[in-house]
This record gives sequence, C-alpha cells and structure tokens, in this order.
Amino acid sequence: MSEARIAEQLGFLAEIDALKSVVRQSPLADRSRRENSAEHSWHLAMFALVLSDDEAVDTAHVIKLLLVHDIVEIDAGDAPIHGNHDSQAVEARENAAAERLFGLLPDDQAATFAGLWREFEAAETPEARFAKTLDRLQPLLLNTLTDGGTWTENRVTEREVHERYGPTIERGSPALWRHAKALVRRHFADSGAQR
Amino acid sequence: MSEARIAEQLGFLAEIDALKSVVRQSPLADRSRRENSAEHSWHLAMFALVLSDDEAVDTAHVIKLLLVHDIVEIDAGDAPIHGNHDSQAVEARENAAAERLFGLLPDDQAATFAGLWREFEAAETPEARFAKTLDRLQPLLLNTLTDGGTWTENRVTEREVHERYGPTIERGSPALWRHAKALVRRHFADSGAQR
Repeated sequence: MSEARIAEQLGFLAEIDALKSVVRQSPLADRSRRENSAEHSWHLAMFALVLSDDEAVDTAHVIKLLLVHDIVEIDAGDAPIHGNHDSQAVEARENAAAERLFGLLPDDQAATFAGLWREFEAAETPEARFAKTLDRLQPLLLNTLTDGGTWTENRVTEREVHERYGPTIERGSPALWRHAKALVRRHFADSGAQR
Repeated sequence: MSEARIAEQLGFLAEIDALKSVVRQSPLADRSRRENSAEHSWHLAMFALVLSDDEAVDTAHVIKLLLVHDIVEIDAGDAPIHGNHDSQAVEARENAAAERLFGLLPDDQAATFAGLWREFEAAETPEARFAKTLDRLQPLLLNTLTDGGTWTENRVTEREVHERYGPTIERGSPALWRHAKALVRRHFADSGAQR
C-alpha cells in the first residue's frame, strides 16, 4: 500500500466517524436513548450474520451492503419511516452525499463503495433485498421490545405496520415476515392499541 | 427456518442490543462524547472493508471477527488499554460471558460464534491478526484527531504509545504501523507532550 493511498483511506474512515452522531427514531431495547446510525449498522450486520444461514444469499455481501447503506446520512440525514418526505429531494441529497463521502476514497474504492450503496438502494439483487428485509425487521423488533416504540409515539396502527414493513420484509424473506407478523400481533393485542 | 430457530436467533439479537450501552474510553472524532462498543464494532468493520484490499487476508472473515469480537463486553465490561487489569479475572469473566451470550443462539450457531470470538482472541490466523491490528489502529486514529484523546487524559508518552500499540499493529500490517507511527510522531511533536 502506498502512503498516499493509506492517507486517503484513513481520511475517509475519520470522516465516517460522524455516522455515530446521526440519531434515528428507534429506541434502544432498554429505552435509555434513541439509536444512532452507526450502531444500527453494526446491529444489522449481526442480523445478517445470524439470520442468513438458511437464506439463498451471499452473507458476506449482505453484510457489506449493510455496513455501507447509511453512510450517506452523514450529509443527508435520516428519513424516518413514519413521516412525509419529498422523495426526490431526499434522493438528490443522498446522491450528493454519496459523491462527496465515497469520493474521499481512492478512485477504485470510491466506485466500489458507491456501487454497494446503489445496489442496496435499488433492491434488485437477492442480497440487497435481504439487506432491506433486515433494515425493516430490526426497528420492528426494537418496537416490539419497547411497548411499541415509534409506533406508539406516532400512533401507528397494526394495519399501517403491515403496510409499511410487510412488503419489504416479505420480499426478502417470507419466513421472517411470518414470524415478525406474529410479534406485531402480540404487541397490538397486549397493548389494546388500535388495529 | 423453523419458528423455534427464528425465535432463538431474534432473542440473541435483542440481547446484544446492550452492546450499544457499553462505553469505551475513546472519544468520538468530534469529541462530543465517548464511543460505545457497538458503533466501535461498525467502525472497525469499515476499517476492514477499506484497508484490507492490499492485505493477504479474507476480508469477509476479518469483518465477521470484528462484528463479534466485543460482544462479551455486555457481561464482562470493557478493559481499557491504559489501565491495570487482572488478566486472569478478565479472561474468566469473558469466557462466562461468551458461554451465556452465544449460548442464546441455536446450538450450531453458538459453536460458530464462540469460535469466531476465540479465533479473534487467539490472534493466530492471519485474519485474527489483522483484526487485532485494526482494533488497535482505530483508537489510535481517534486520539490523533482529538488532541491526544485518552493519551492526554492518561499522560501516556510517545514511547508508551509505541509499546502499547506498535507490536499488535505491526504484526498484522507493517505498512499500517509505518503510517500510524508517523501520525503519532506528528501528534507528539505538535502537542509538545513528553516523549
């Protein structure tokens, strides 16, 4: 490795430290605070390592997609699932963020990392679909562990949970959606919240 | 995937959410707070993805080792580098933690994950050595970005930095240690701190 290459790589790695300060809506399981996007990305990579064993996907590739998928939020911010967004504006901000952030890397790696991010966003490969499944499943699990978490905060109904989480989770893994749907049912039954 | 298997897997994934609450000594690059072990693990996985391209290691395996390496801290706590530890007591606590935490997984996965953790600890495979290199390099980088970070707090000298970080970083990557040593030199030269 040349000195110049290492310097660029460490410059990128220093810059993405900022993902630890991007705060998401999801609570931690112990409700002590909200989750940040860096620890969320670690958690998702662990979801991939644990849950992909029976799926027809390349686990290592799913992990790479998940490690990289939120880095654009350093510049573009997080767009919560329960909210209204101008999706074109979000997309434009995220594209600019990808160009700046991955552009800090040596050229060959900039292209590779931007490619991983675009693959995740497009959700067309089996690995990207499964990564999207996990990115929806993890906050669902946190909500069921915290008396409804963001659902309770935003008065989200069981039907809305099905609409907002179901298609993405089921597309990557029907088995995980079956299980998740049962957890959701149990939460709404216990809480007596509106269906 | 059977329902029972998914339930065990999600139970483990819910339990390891607690790694987000294990606070390390290292500061974030913006000095807003100290780093936790979950976001540290994400950052290390990104170090592996970026820095292993010219190394003779299986990148995906390095990433798996790093995702798992700190999970035992949920029960055993973090043992900071600049401090005195009863290493036998730390080892006993970590072994018990590994047994309890990885034991939450289905049996086959419990063995696999405990194996990843033991491989990292033993630092005998090329992948584990390189993972250890990154686990030392990342806090070194954060310290150089924050006017010395934990070195300044603990009055650590340049010679002590060489002793405590050098062997582990150099063993996994002489090129990264050459670069890191220059960053350390620049920090101590700029700060006028004791060599």
